[in-house]
Amino acid sequence: MEAHRQKFFVTLEALRKLIHRQAIAHIRNVLQKLNPKDIAHLLPHFSREEQRLLFALIDDPVLAAEVLRETDQATQQELLSRQTPEKLIEIFREMPSDDVTDIIAILPEELAKQVLERLSAQEAQEVAELLKYPSDTAGGIMNPDFLALPETMTVEEAIREVRKASEVEMVFYIYVVDEKNHLRGVLSLRQLLLASPEQTLQEIMWRDVIKVNVAMDQEEVARIVSRYNFVAIPVVNDEGELVGIITVDDIIDVIREEATEDIFRMAGTDEEELLFSHSILRVARFRLPWLLTSLVGGIISSELIWRFNFVIRDLVALATFIPVIMGMGGNVGTQSAAIVVRGLATGRIDLALIGRTIRREVCTGLVMGGVCGVLLALVATLLHWNPLLGLVVGVSLFFAILVAATMGTLMPVLFRKLGIDPAIASGPFVTTANDITGLLIYFSLATLMLSYLL
Amino acid sequence: MEAHRQKFFVTLEALRKLIHRQAIAHIRNVLQKLNPKDIAHLLPHFSREEQRLLFALIDDPVLAAEVLRETDQATQQELLSRQTPEKLIEIFREMPSDDVTDIIAILPEELAKQVLERLSAQEAQEVAELLKYPSDTAGGIMNPDFLALPETMTVEEAIREVRKASEVEMVFYIYVVDEKNHLRGVLSLRQLLLASPEQTLQEIMWRDVIKVNVAMDQEEVARIVSRYNFVAIPVVNDEGELVGIITVDDIIDVIREEATEDIFRMAGTDEEELLFSHSILRVARFRLPWLLTSLVGGIISSELIWRFNFVIRDLVALATFIPVIMGMGGNVGTQSAAIVVRGLATGRIDLALIGRTIRREVCTGLVMGGVCGVLLALVATLLHWNPLLGLVVGVSLFFAILVAATMGTLMPVLFRKLGIDPAIASGPFVTTANDITGLLIYFSLATLMLSYLL
Repeated sequence: MEAHRQKFFVTLEALRKLIHRQAIAHIRNVLQKLNPKDIAHLLPHFSREEQRLLFALIDDPVLAAEVLRETDQATQQELLSRQTPEKLIEIFREMPSDDVTDIIAILPEELAKQVLERLSAQEAQEVAELLKYPSDTAGGIMNPDFLALPETMTVEEAIREVRKASEVEMVFYIYVVDEKNHLRGVLSLRQLLLASPEQTLQEIMWRDVIKVNVAMDQEEVARIVSRYNFVAIPVVNDEGELVGIITVDDIIDVIREEATEDIFRMAGTDEEELLFSHSILRVARFRLPWLLTSLVGGIISSELIWRFNFVIRDLVALATFIPVIMGMGGNVGTQSAAIVVRGLATGRIDLALIGRTIRREVCTGLVMGGVCGVLLALVATLLHWNPLLGLVVGVSLFFAILVAATMGTLMPVLFRKLGIDPAIASGPFVTTANDITGLLIYFSLATLMLSYLL
Repeated sequence: MEAHRQKFFVTLEALRKLIHRQAIAHIRNVLQKLNPKDIAHLLPHFSREEQRLLFALIDDPVLAAEVLRETDQATQQELLSRQTPEKLIEIFREMPSDDVTDIIAILPEELAKQVLERLSAQEAQEVAELLKYPSDTAGGIMNPDFLALPETMTVEEAIREVRKASEVEMVFYIYVVDEKNHLRGVLSLRQLLLASPEQTLQEIMWRDVIKVNVAMDQEEVARIVSRYNFVAIPVVNDEGELVGIITVDDIIDVIREEATEDIFRMAGTDEEELLFSHSILRVARFRLPWLLTSLVGGIISSELIWRFNFVIRDLVALATFIPVIMGMGGNVGTQSAAIVVRGLATGRIDLALIGRTIRREVCTGLVMGGVCGVLLALVATLLHWNPLLGLVVGVSLFFAILVAATMGTLMPVLFRKLGIDPAIASGPFVTTANDITGLLIYFSLATLMLSYLL
């Protein structure tokens, strides 16, 4: 591993120096010797101008295509924005059509149109076909180039076909179809090797194929592939025709993307690609809306406390516990929401069986609220030598935690049922809601008890 | 997809009814017909007693082994705790030794000892070998059963070997070694099919094998496998000997686990397995330490505010902005920390090149602090008709956001450098630190300006 990272930094430094010295021939030389995946990984560490220079120096369109496919979306956009449609077509010729589709989808509209016009008829049709599917569905991530053989073919013929099929990437399974292109079975390469040459595919194939529909959400596809440990899964349309395959490397990307998306949404932000952008104003513009939501929430909390200003005037100590009530509610709510959001994402929690989870979270909230409430009651009593103040603060914390645990659990569930990403539910939105309820409970209780507190 | 989920619920309901009716023969029948991976996925939705009953009714040790391997750790522990060592040995015989090792690692100590004594000499040695590696390293997740062939072997002989190697799961690549078992090259099954029978493996193999060391962290392994789109990667020891392979299904588990761990740690909790446990007290016991950290932090904030009680007494409106200053600092800090934590995890941010990220986050903090500060200043001025109060509140918010963005970025970096999981840095610990700094800035500024504020 150290060797691996070391090589990375040595190459990075070498390229930086060569760019600085404008040693164009040298750079070309270095790039040619690198693995395209390593180039793709190096690129984001250069400035925008350097990225464009490096990419322009990759002469081989096969290499350029591979680099482009493997780099992240922010870098792709950078590299593509200045290309001519002709250069793009040259690169696209070396790419599977699912990757071409993904890239066309992020091109500026005018450029995308020009590129589409210049694609060959077959490619244009494949791309148009793929563009029909939303990018987060099985259809959107599938590869339409795959090896499918008729069920009546013999093993010997099949082996010949596999030898010929050099264009298809990563052949691990062979899909078997009937004359109408309906998926009928699957075979591993190894099964082909084990069978005798004259057997037909339908004699040796595995019939109980697990497949996904083009419209299935990519997260659900990822769950299925990882549950069954497949390296590829076939995609069929509503008529049962085999239309593509999804390979495990795309599944890994989906899992990473979805986890990142969840993490960012829970942290109150969004759009991985934009957060790693070179432009600070762009990053700020994307993070601000979430903060402004919080700001509005904070101002509401602030007004709420102002309504109770007479209580604070009488007993300033009450104001000092605002951070505890708010902070603890926020923490418990975030914990519960994280458990539900992640549980829903990994399939450990199922929406149809949510009752048990809700019960568990509420009961856990009771226990944790009890423990923290008692502790805070004791501390407050000792600090201000006022047992009634301790009681008010402790009871409020108990309820604030209970409410936060309940809301933290129910909100993601509700959001999911409404078709909104549940991860959003544990961001600033719910934290703010918890703050307001917590403060409301606290100051209401304090007002009720005020005559005894003084 | 709907068909898939529907089948899941129908089976779940059917099994529940059968258990209720104690229809043992029927249950056996249903279980035999199910895919072991589906059983593994169903089990967590039953009560502990039902889980044990169902597992006991799986007579076939091959099926039992497969179910056990595929279910989650909480369920594994439940199922294993009541087994005899004899029954376990029977099941372990049907499992690859890396899975046996993982399970032995979670058995109660006494039972683990009894099982280890009863394993065959070869198995015991393999398990002992694997137990040496920490479970989160390449050595800990690798499978020691793989197909390695000598470089002098011919293609014809190699195909014969592949046919024989039925025990080895998922043969996609064939690793080529020299007489000292040093890894020399790699071949895909397809390359074998393409070559002529009399060629030797060293003539056709790919020599530039990307491999990982047994000691490499599993997250790093996952990054390499996903960068190069492999379906398996070879593991070598310090002497360069091939000792195991890691397949992509294990990589997917690693990616999921690490993402879940990050999410939970950022939300201020830990240990996925315990959070989904059936026992509320156990869940509460695991979530409480994080909350108590926050509670202590909250009490410190509370004491801090108390030090400024004279300011609040003079101007109660000041107390009402505590939630805004705290909440906004918390949000910005969480955003920045999430970006850094996730960037480090996915490899988009490299520790050696952290300078750019820090600059970007600090500058973004300046912009966001500026915007939010001005807005809050205006709102506070209007609400309390006091421009100086507005100024104090706005300037404090600006600094609170700037500090939070900076700390949210630096803390995960610092934690990583200290060898602590950076995700912890964005949990309650850092939120609390941000709360305290935010409040300190706010009340110090208010005290300074107090004579003008009234």
